[in-house]
Amino acid sequence: MEGGVDYLIDERKKAQFDVEAMKVAWAGSRQAFELSDRIAKLVANDPIFEKFSRPMLGRKELFKNSLRKVAHAWKLIIDLRLSEEEAKLLRHYIDEPAYTDLQWEMFIPAIEGQGTEEQKRKWLPLARKMQVIGSYAQTELGHGSNVQGLETTATFDPQTDEFVIHSPTLTSSKWWPGGTAKVSTHAIVYARLILDGQFHGVHGFIVQLRNLENHTPLPGITVGDIGMKFGNGAYNTMDNGVIRFNHVHIPRNQMLMRVSQVTREGKFVQSDVPRQLLYGTMVYVRQKIVADASKALSRAVCIATRYSAVRRQFGSRNGGPEIQVIDYKTQQSRLFPLLASAYAFRFVGEWLKWLYTDVKQRLEANDFSTLPEAHACTAGLKSLTTSATADGIEECRKLCGGHGYLVSSGIPELFATYVPACTFEGDNVVMMLQVARFLVKTVSELGYKQPVGTTAYMRRVTALMQSNCAVRTAEEWLNPGVVVEAFEARSTRMAVACGQRLAKFENPEEGFAELSADLVEASLAHCQVIVVSKFVEKLQQEIPGKGVKRLLEVLFYVYALFLLHKHQGDFLATGYLTPKQASLANDQLRILYSKVRPNAIALVDSFNHTDHLLSSILGRYDGNVYPKLYEAAFNDPFNDSDIADGIHQYVQPMLRQELHSAKL
Amino acid sequence: MEGGVDYLIDERKKAQFDVEAMKVAWAGSRQAFELSDRIAKLVANDPIFEKFSRPMLGRKELFKNSLRKVAHAWKLIIDLRLSEEEAKLLRHYIDEPAYTDLQWEMFIPAIEGQGTEEQKRKWLPLARKMQVIGSYAQTELGHGSNVQGLETTATFDPQTDEFVIHSPTLTSSKWWPGGTAKVSTHAIVYARLILDGQFHGVHGFIVQLRNLENHTPLPGITVGDIGMKFGNGAYNTMDNGVIRFNHVHIPRNQMLMRVSQVTREGKFVQSDVPRQLLYGTMVYVRQKIVADASKALSRAVCIATRYSAVRRQFGSRNGGPEIQVIDYKTQQSRLFPLLASAYAFRFVGEWLKWLYTDVKQRLEANDFSTLPEAHACTAGLKSLTTSATADGIEECRKLCGGHGYLVSSGIPELFATYVPACTFEGDNVVMMLQVARFLVKTVSELGYKQPVGTTAYMRRVTALMQSNCAVRTAEEWLNPGVVVEAFEARSTRMAVACGQRLAKFENPEEGFAELSADLVEASLAHCQVIVVSKFVEKLQQEIPGKGVKRLLEVLFYVYALFLLHKHQGDFLATGYLTPKQASLANDQLRILYSKVRPNAIALVDSFNHTDHLLSSILGRYDGNVYPKLYEAAFNDPFNDSDIADGIHQYVQPMLRQELHSAKL
Repeated sequence: MEGGVDYLIDERKKAQFDVEAMKVAWAGSRQAFELSDRIAKLVANDPIFEKFSRPMLGRKELFKNSLRKVAHAWKLIIDLRLSEEEAKLLRHYIDEPAYTDLQWEMFIPAIEGQGTEEQKRKWLPLARKMQVIGSYAQTELGHGSNVQGLETTATFDPQTDEFVIHSPTLTSSKWWPGGTAKVSTHAIVYARLILDGQFHGVHGFIVQLRNLENHTPLPGITVGDIGMKFGNGAYNTMDNGVIRFNHVHIPRNQMLMRVSQVTREGKFVQSDVPRQLLYGTMVYVRQKIVADASKALSRAVCIATRYSAVRRQFGSRNGGPEIQVIDYKTQQSRLFPLLASAYAFRFVGEWLKWLYTDVKQRLEANDFSTLPEAHACTAGLKSLTTSATADGIEECRKLCGGHGYLVSSGIPELFATYVPACTFEGDNVVMMLQVARFLVKTVSELGYKQPVGTTAYMRRVTALMQSNCAVRTAEEWLNPGVVVEAFEARSTRMAVACGQRLAKFENPEEGFAELSADLVEASLAHCQVIVVSKFVEKLQQEIPGKGVKRLLEVLFYVYALFLLHKHQGDFLATGYLTPKQASLANDQLRILYSKVRPNAIALVDSFNHTDHLLSSILGRYDGNVYPKLYEAAFNDPFNDSDIADGIHQYVQPMLRQELHSAKL
Repeated sequence: MEGGVDYLIDERKKAQFDVEAMKVAWAGSRQAFELSDRIAKLVANDPIFEKFSRPMLGRKELFKNSLRKVAHAWKLIIDLRLSEEEAKLLRHYIDEPAYTDLQWEMFIPAIEGQGTEEQKRKWLPLARKMQVIGSYAQTELGHGSNVQGLETTATFDPQTDEFVIHSPTLTSSKWWPGGTAKVSTHAIVYARLILDGQFHGVHGFIVQLRNLENHTPLPGITVGDIGMKFGNGAYNTMDNGVIRFNHVHIPRNQMLMRVSQVTREGKFVQSDVPRQLLYGTMVYVRQKIVADASKALSRAVCIATRYSAVRRQFGSRNGGPEIQVIDYKTQQSRLFPLLASAYAFRFVGEWLKWLYTDVKQRLEANDFSTLPEAHACTAGLKSLTTSATADGIEECRKLCGGHGYLVSSGIPELFATYVPACTFEGDNVVMMLQVARFLVKTVSELGYKQPVGTTAYMRRVTALMQSNCAVRTAEEWLNPGVVVEAFEARSTRMAVACGQRLAKFENPEEGFAELSADLVEASLAHCQVIVVSKFVEKLQQEIPGKGVKRLLEVLFYVYALFLLHKHQGDFLATGYLTPKQASLANDQLRILYSKVRPNAIALVDSFNHTDHLLSSILGRYDGNVYPKLYEAAFNDPFNDSDIADGIHQYVQPMLRQELHSAKL
């Protein structure tokens, strides 16, 4: 609460649960809540981190402002002796893509994961003190997802004991790496290792890009910014770069050599470190993406929900106020499933954190048995949550009506900043195809191999294929077991059907390609089983606070029954549900919406987002929307003068019919 | 074709139809094609209309640049003596929202439709010569769709024979009207007419906003820009405004008085001009929106299709090139339905043009019988096409992978400029609810009243409710009658089911509100019948050119069977299709994709978009993507210097560990 009159107080009074307890449930623990709350407020109260005016700045000014924030944040981190966890939260709440994201999320973890002990000793202290600033240069102008197709070369020169990093073609130019255009002094560059004319796979190399004294690019290195990206401020605070290498020499010990080495003699040696260790990082990165999805979606939902309570349209009776748009069923049927999704993604993200710890422990014990399943499951959840979040943010914008189109609504910037999540770290469709490969394999082995982890439900394949849903009333849908079983049956049946159709192809790869669109649908069905099941598991835990668990149960049913309605084609086509049962689920959904309604504002308050983080006039905590919109308009620098630049030159001659003699 | 090497020539050679003839089919006629082609090239070849650098400009610079373009365009219109139709096309191809849109699409038509003969004689010549610049001020800060809820007042003062225009509250401030913030000299202001303390409905008033000599706002008028909107350049070339009136006096004869008048004595008089005449304008505006949807979608599809042929990922065999992404079924299953949708929307838009002429003729003959149906049908098609287009543009962006996120891909700007279409001229959900009201009425009257126009198919309600689909093979889906019948049966059954459920409510309005989400789904099903049927009607006409009709047939089936798959839940739930039949349709869809594949590039070439209009490096006609992306990056002003502003101040002190003493 940020002081002043609370225009949403009546809404807040309607809540049927303990909001403070729900905040803890959302955060994961009281400790996590207090930590986030403290750091969020630290950022919100510091005027240097102001971000509302960001979209009005030109690119250079925007970038400079962002560099200033990063420096200020680093000063705070040192002065306040913040822990690594606190520093990470600080960067999160500053909410502005910057080169430090690369430093802490990519450069340092890559060295930790792929560097030798010696390399770690040398580079990690430099990076952790910001004495070097590193980025991560994998993607090329002509190559995205397919790492094995990268063209950049690293050729060993035995005479000088160096690698020669080179961009042999235009399309081999590194393209996208954040931070590199203007800031990074170093980068981990992925390149094809060439020893004595032989290709030995793609590896990472630490390459210095800039002179540490005067910041100019080193000889042989051409570097620049790749240009404006979607949105006003958005990701344009980041200097995504293009890098071209012209025979740049680096010492041999700057190849990351934990897994493979090149000896002084130029021999390629594979160490006994299992390559699978690298997959641990992938699980880590993806669980973070899922956690971020719930955060981003919750922001959009918070804005749209609050504004839907403020905004009134139509239906005035006897000259009274119009109806709050949140009371319209069409609004509820679009908004509340997204509210429920934010919670669902939050809980599945929490579970993924546990999965990462589990995978790490097993890897350390040389147990790789769960890795394929963890790999598929995290790929699928990355895809499901980021696609739903990107679409959900845009839906929330539309749910704000015309005003959602204003940058001051906060949603356009959120959308533009968020959407890359659908393509980075693995395109979402490619991810779902990875899930499909795993599913098809799982199904084909059902006869002799027990499926594990999130596919364990397929052990009950016979039952799931044969018995159909028994629901006879709308009320009977309010049973977690019934709901989960429906999702499991649909997923199993779709996966088995895909397996059967694939078996008809002589060439399995051709079959996989031909049926890929259907395989993606089957994968999505499986991933929805995971989200739904993990929500149920959460509900089986103790959740303190008056009414908290009850509301989460309502949200669970909203999430699941909304999906069931959306994908009713699958449920009907697989024969698990009858049209009548699907229709009963939809009836129940409407009842659930009325249960959410009085709690809607309190449910978005429970995200504990500061007004700074939301950066949205429509989503203000106090609901004081219209006066603040009006005020913001007149504070826009474009309104400095009543007569805009260009009026005298280009408009007045037209009005005076003197355009023919005007100089344009 | 813009000269130089054509990197897509092999793709163009694969086409199995006459591209030039398809261009004519797309344009509607040879004459229409030649006209558009001539004006498009006129714009493309004029350096003043360059728009590629737009996203890099600050707001003021962007706006000034836009004023310059408008003045230059007006000069061209006069110098080249362009007809009104040519001038309209010129503005379309300049592709930049500006105050002239309001002048020609809103201000002038409103006076033509709602003004008396005397008002037309006075104001139209002034406006047509640009001696006054008018906008259209309806929406208020607190009021969008609900015109009857507007708060601005126009109180007649019999002493001075004037109206007093006033904004009694903050929320009554006019908000959004384009052109008003900085340019418009006049506006048609919608306000509550008050005569002797009595409210007499909402009417339009011509209000002068600015002094014609020095362009300053007149006394009592506070005006400003409402701030940045979504996107970089996008709609920010338009000065959408806020206006607040403080007792502004205007002459009585500036109320638009064709339908209602206020006499010198302050009496309210209703003329015998039927109010329905005003609805003609609504049909006109909506048919234009549908036509624009097909144009916008075709641009995004053109970019994504060309880049999908250029871009290669994975699947290299024996060191050969990787596979073109357009060859992946997952890509085809997302891209080709959008390609087909662009054609479908084009043809339904063409039909709507005819409908508008028909409605106009009937109105002139005082025949209002078809008006409710035309009203519902245009509302529904506006909603269907704009929603699908907005989603489709974003999907095309994703289909371009990471590079789609660059503004230089052209898609972010297209998306940001396009999305308001989903909320303006009636929010898309509100539109669908209007369709629903009409459908429910139609269904309830089926016993005694013949449905007309696009609902005529419901005359066969008994057959459509009873007989189910007879398809037994995938091949049998290739029958327009079979396809249309499926859509008609699904729509009829959904509408009838809604009617039955509504009948159970005691209060019909409550029932309508409660079931509104389902009613929206039934409305969509009905609108899809219209699009599918109009595509079939197009195919029944003569379409010259080798292979042209055959390819359009393929696109028809892609469009229809894709929808059938997407909404298979409806088709199965209504019992019209069996799961087997739905699955056969999906099998046929995959076969159709392979028929589209060799023609894909030629099908997007047939839109005849210039590189100027696309403003996209990924969608270049010649496919020379990567060198041009590289070139554009280094032409970006942000790359003027290797050392960005802020590096010395905020980055170097950090690297040198001297941050503690730096001034931030």
